[in-house]
Amino acid sequence: MSKALRPQDIIRTKRERGQLTAEQIEFIIQGVTDGSIPDYQLAALLMAIFLHGLDDDELRHWTAAMVNSGRVVDLSRIAPKKVDKHSTGGVGDKVSICLAPIVAACGVAVPMISGRGLGHTGGTLDKLEAIPGFSTALTIDRFTDVVEQAGLALIGQTDDLAPADRRLYALRDITSTVESIPLIASSIMSKKIAEGIDGLVLDVKVGSGAFMKDLSSARELAKTLCAIGNGAKKAVAAVLSDMSQPLGRAIGNANETREAIEVLHGKGPADLVELTLVLASEMLMLAGEAPQSARQRVETARNDGSALAALRRCVELQNGDTAVVDDPSKLTIASQTSEVLAAREGYLSQIDCEQVGIAAMLLGAGRLRLDSKIDHSVGLTYLSRLGERVTTDTPLFRLHHNDKDAAQRATARLQQAITISDAPRPAPPLVYETIR
Amino acid sequence: MSKALRPQDIIRTKRERGQLTAEQIEFIIQGVTDGSIPDYQLAALLMAIFLHGLDDDELRHWTAAMVNSGRVVDLSRIAPKKVDKHSTGGVGDKVSICLAPIVAACGVAVPMISGRGLGHTGGTLDKLEAIPGFSTALTIDRFTDVVEQAGLALIGQTDDLAPADRRLYALRDITSTVESIPLIASSIMSKKIAEGIDGLVLDVKVGSGAFMKDLSSARELAKTLCAIGNGAKKAVAAVLSDMSQPLGRAIGNANETREAIEVLHGKGPADLVELTLVLASEMLMLAGEAPQSARQRVETARNDGSALAALRRCVELQNGDTAVVDDPSKLTIASQTSEVLAAREGYLSQIDCEQVGIAAMLLGAGRLRLDSKIDHSVGLTYLSRLGERVTTDTPLFRLHHNDKDAAQRATARLQQAITISDAPRPAPPLVYETIR
Repeated sequence: MSKALRPQDIIRTKRERGQLTAEQIEFIIQGVTDGSIPDYQLAALLMAIFLHGLDDDELRHWTAAMVNSGRVVDLSRIAPKKVDKHSTGGVGDKVSICLAPIVAACGVAVPMISGRGLGHTGGTLDKLEAIPGFSTALTIDRFTDVVEQAGLALIGQTDDLAPADRRLYALRDITSTVESIPLIASSIMSKKIAEGIDGLVLDVKVGSGAFMKDLSSARELAKTLCAIGNGAKKAVAAVLSDMSQPLGRAIGNANETREAIEVLHGKGPADLVELTLVLASEMLMLAGEAPQSARQRVETARNDGSALAALRRCVELQNGDTAVVDDPSKLTIASQTSEVLAAREGYLSQIDCEQVGIAAMLLGAGRLRLDSKIDHSVGLTYLSRLGERVTTDTPLFRLHHNDKDAAQRATARLQQAITISDAPRPAPPLVYETIR
Repeated sequence: MSKALRPQDIIRTKRERGQLTAEQIEFIIQGVTDGSIPDYQLAALLMAIFLHGLDDDELRHWTAAMVNSGRVVDLSRIAPKKVDKHSTGGVGDKVSICLAPIVAACGVAVPMISGRGLGHTGGTLDKLEAIPGFSTALTIDRFTDVVEQAGLALIGQTDDLAPADRRLYALRDITSTVESIPLIASSIMSKKIAEGIDGLVLDVKVGSGAFMKDLSSARELAKTLCAIGNGAKKAVAAVLSDMSQPLGRAIGNANETREAIEVLHGKGPADLVELTLVLASEMLMLAGEAPQSARQRVETARNDGSALAALRRCVELQNGDTAVVDDPSKLTIASQTSEVLAAREGYLSQIDCEQVGIAAMLLGAGRLRLDSKIDHSVGLTYLSRLGERVTTDTPLFRLHHNDKDAAQRATARLQQAITISDAPRPAPPLVYETIR
């Protein structure tokens, strides 16, 4: 690393819309990781990147430097292809829990490192921890063992993967530089590439419950994610899927885990089942399966009990109670319920899905603050779908709660989130497009 | 001040090209002053301002908040109008030292707070300190006394005027956010408005030795400075003057002070005399003098000894040796000299004036680092002018130095800074335009 590099010169280059060299980017990320570049210089650089972007070359170098800021998991002793899935986050998105076992049962290893819920979106870790005893805090060595033995492992982020991302993310959060596609994309991809995967399917959510509210920005993010993945020589595909209403019916942690496991018992709502099979097929194709046979194989794994067996093995190896895998109704659920009815007759035409996520959070399913404690038993059941005809006695949501005040606040949120119109509006598609 | 204001929301507003409210700007500058807003949030905001600017309303609020971050000098007990001059900095610009006494002798008070040299530009304080005993570190109370008794006072910046500027300037320097017209203009104007003045003449330098290299960016800076001054209900005018060659013949501290004092003895180079009289006339006009009589009055004050008497009184009150006012040849000068001759025959057509300033700095007239010590005795004499015919034995510069190695390095700089052409090129005007 040249001694002559200075952060202020690199800031100036990006400020003037110049292209940063690989050496400059490595110097910055090294300085992020070892603390040698102070927060204020990083903040100025992040704002310049926010406003002027990073091109494909810069993004490739930036992400590679983030990956190299920490450990890269070595999964080379695992023979099958290693393919993961990442979702940009939404409401009711419990896909990982049914998807990973299906893919593992098809002979593709799934080394999945997930996050917790933040804001209105749920997190896979919080959902998994509704399984009694289930541990998401495994060492990387133990994680590798579980992937080898079960074909999948489901754990939380560790300190040694892409550590530069943690400092950058914390700084972005307080300097209003979060909503930058290159910074979001490099953050996602650095953590995933550090998992030691061969391929990655990206589920980019679009709509009122997603980070990206419209198709064009979701498409831009999807393309940026794919460009980074390709630059890192990973097989990648991105599925743009709908988040203008909750995915499936269940929202909340135990509630969602139950619904996801039901998918492996041949049940579950149609949209959740379909998106799971679409994403699983893409993952198989990235591992080399022919497009013609991929769908058939994932359906078989779902139907013949092999996916359920893979999940059972994973839960067992991660110290969870396998009884809930065989009988998901054993998962906890809050005892008090209430319903939100349609306010008028007509067609359910629109839902502010972010508000639905916030309503679940108000019940205790998510965190109001980073240190809030989660109640795994509370949540919502989404009883209707966009486009359906409703009358004033049609229940739209059922609340499962442990606190009447919280339920009242959540109910008010939900009532405001719902739009009922006189004429039917077409329901959104489940999948908009796939970028390969 | 509302408790609900958050720095990240203000950063976001400017990031999205929004207009900051007076309340938001006051909150930011308050946080700069009391340290409650961390450097990294300020750095992100400064970069957003650098790239998206501040409009006239924002600039007015920003500057007012900077002024109010500290003390505003109360000169109300001084009956005459108080008018100051600020130069954006150049090479050989010793105008303040002869200008302020002329204006004071015309009955307009000049409360002048100056800076030190930085980089290639000289600073009035360093020049004044070539006068034996002269103190530029007066309290504000003593400063006010000197203005009252001498009609002028010449001191350095104090900690209690516009303290927010110091933190912002230090942060801009290391986050590559210096060269922003709104940030430069608000920094200049906040310090000047805090002097308690009624009016201000801005000498905006244009050319190779100036911060602004071209007329259009100098004009933009001048207009921004005037807009802020008008917004603060001050009488302001801006003179765009040439800095494509040194002003006058003397460069270096004692050297420049000597030349400036000579102007008050009826001598001095024509360009320095003319610019001094132009700026002095503008200052009188801002104090209410009629344009028809202003020039006559300042010429009289220069010629009848009253300006010299005002300077003598000021030097005396600031503990300086008044003998050098009466006989400026008593000021120190380095004993070793050498000359830089024209490299070829032709017309002196261009000078990289910034390099001339750097050559003087290399001799010891300026600071290579913030903590470098200055040698008041060294400097240059600029012996030719742009447009003049030169032969190979025409001396272009004389060096006054105390170190042969430094003189060699300075000579090399000067030789590279000079362009001689076959055909004559028109010499630049001394004053391009005046904005009132």
